[in-house]
Amino acid sequence: MSITIRPLDDRVVIEEVEAEEKTAGGIVLPDTAKEKPQRGRVLAVGPGKLLDNGERASIGLAVGDEILFGKYSGTEIKVNGKEVKILRESEVLAKIVN
Amino acid sequence: MSITIRPLDDRVVIEEVEAEEKTAGGIVLPDTAKEKPQRGRVLAVGPGKLLDNGERASIGLAVGDEILFGKYSGTEIKVNGKEVKILRESEVLAKIVN
Amino acid sequence: MSITIRPLDDRVVIEEVEAEEKTAGGIVLPDTAKEKPQRGRVLAVGPGKLLDNGERASIGLAVGDEILFGKYSGTEIKVNGKEVKILRESEVLAKIVN
Amino acid sequence: MSITIRPLDDRVVIEEVEAEEKTAGGIVLPDTAKEKPQRGRVLAVGPGKLLDNGERASIGLAVGDEILFGKYSGTEIKVNGKEVKILRESEVLAKIVN
Amino acid sequence: MSITIRPLDDRVVIEEVEAEEKTAGGIVLPDTAKEKPQRGRVLAVGPGKLLDNGERASIGLAVGDEILFGKYSGTEIKVNGKEVKILRESEVLAKIVN
Amino acid sequence: MSITIRPLDDRVVIEEVEAEEKTAGGIVLPDTAKEKPQRGRVLAVGPGKLLDNGERASIGLAVGDEILFGKYSGTEIKVNGKEVKILRESEVLAKIVN
Amino acid sequence: MSITIRPLDDRVVIEEVEAEEKTAGGIVLPDTAKEKPQRGRVLAVGPGKLLDNGERASIGLAVGDEILFGKYSGTEIKVNGKEVKILRESEVLAKIVN
Repeated sequence: MSITIRPLDDRVVIEEVEAEEKTAGGIVLPDTAKEKPQRGRVLAVGPGKLLDNGERASIGLAVGDEILFGKYSGTEIKVNGKEVKILRESEVLAKIVN
Repeated sequence: MSITIRPLDDRVVIEEVEAEEKTAGGIVLPDTAKEKPQRGRVLAVGPGKLLDNGERASIGLAVGDEILFGKYSGTEIKVNGKEVKILRESEVLAKIVN
Repeated sequence: MSITIRPLDDRVVIEEVEAEEKTAGGIVLPDTAKEKPQRGRVLAVGPGKLLDNGERASIGLAVGDEILFGKYSGTEIKVNGKEVKILRESEVLAKIVN
Repeated sequence: MSITIRPLDDRVVIEEVEAEEKTAGGIVLPDTAKEKPQRGRVLAVGPGKLLDNGERASIGLAVGDEILFGKYSGTEIKVNGKEVKILRESEVLAKIVN
Repeated sequence: MSITIRPLDDRVVIEEVEAEEKTAGGIVLPDTAKEKPQRGRVLAVGPGKLLDNGERASIGLAVGDEILFGKYSGTEIKVNGKEVKILRESEVLAKIVN
Repeated sequence: MSITIRPLDDRVVIEEVEAEEKTAGGIVLPDTAKEKPQRGRVLAVGPGKLLDNGERASIGLAVGDEILFGKYSGTEIKVNGKEVKILRESEVLAKIVN
Repeated sequence: MSITIRPLDDRVVIEEVEAEEKTAGGIVLPDTAKEKPQRGRVLAVGPGKLLDNGERASIGLAVGDEILFGKYSGTEIKVNGKEVKILRESEVLAKIVN
């Protein structure tokens, strides 16, 4: 049985991208940084942040996007044997475009 | 005599889902996480968060939804012999869909 | 001479419901909880929280409602020989419906 | 020469009501409370809190109202030989109605 | 050469009123208060606090008004040989009317 | 080669006015003040603070204005051999008018 | 393979400008400052800060702009062999114009 998790609000579910891919992709994430950034791939996107008028802001990320995020951001969980993280959109630093 | 509790504002009442179900459901909640997430089922949903214009935002959760939430979130209480928790919607990380 | 107190803003006046009633009502309030919840009955309701537009939000509680609230919430006072508490609506966790 | 003080914003000027009156009025203010509430009478009312749209919210208190307020709230001052306190409306817990 | 200072935002410039006048005016400022209030006279008034819509709220004080303010509020400065203070309007407790 | 710096948001660039001018201008800045105010001249003004509606509030300062500001406010920098400071408008206490 | 990073929200990607250029450009960044400012060049600009109405504010910076920023602002990363920083627009102090 396979299951899916759907993040709430402005949260996204991501999986970390492995070290081999990191070198190939031309991005080096320095060990000396205060909060070492990590590279990940978006698996699921929430409905967006609740605005003061009761609507929701659209999220600037889509499933499949590669991203950079802070190492200590979010909550770890294992879904169908795969380790994933639930982050808020505001914890995502940037999208990576090849 | 049976009683019900109706959460206020953006609160939900949930019961924790047992460990047996967790393994079956394909989700592993790692012990190493800073705040180990828990799996639960929604029993009751509040009227939603009060907006600046005096209306209430609708809650993105319905009775019966399975959810993930942080271990130390909310307030424990026993209703009709069943242990439940009262959480704010913002403390719910994600919905689980089988 | 009997007196009444009328709470301001989004405050309510409540009296705690006795332990005997608690068992009968099917709710057990565990001693192990971080902030042990208490059961109470609403005696008076304020005009509601002041909104940014100058109006007041209606309060989702009415006189006579039974509620759950955190043990250390609010201010104690004795009115006409009866111990009551003045709470903000946001300190009320849930309504109890029999 | 007699003088008056007019509070600004959402402030009120109150005088504390004496202990004799407290017993008569059916209100006991327990010594065990974290912040022991006090009973007072409103002497002057400010123009109200400034709203985001530049108008002022009306204050739910009038001159002559009896109120409950936290012991350590506000600023003490002596005007024409009478000790008074300047409080914010939000520091007033409730109105007392005989 | 005489100079003037014009406060920005919701600030006012005030001069402290001397002790002799205080006694005459029927106001006693107790030494026992946590933050002993002071009596002053308004010398200049700023354009008012910037609102969310880009306009400015009018200030409820005018040049010449006598006021009460907290002893440790504001910034001291000497202009044309006179000691003055620059305060925010919200630091002014009340206007004094003779 | 001469360069200019253009402050962002509600920031201004100022240069400190020398001590000789201070005495002449009739303003004494006391050493005993908690945060000794300084006198400066505005060199550049930003586009203004971003409002909730996406517009920018106009800044109440113009190039050439003399101002008072707190000693420890802002960031120091040397541009074309001249020491300047970048401050937020809200850190400027008052304008000086001769 | 070359890659690009696209910052989210009101973030910008910048590269630090070398010391040789700093001297030539007429700007000296003093070592004595509390938070020594740095000079940089903008490489990429995000979509802008999310406003309360769900739109995004335009960013006052463009690719190629030279800027001043606080030394300890932002997150370091190496992209295609070049060290860059991801900053929020509000961490940029000023634009430099030659």
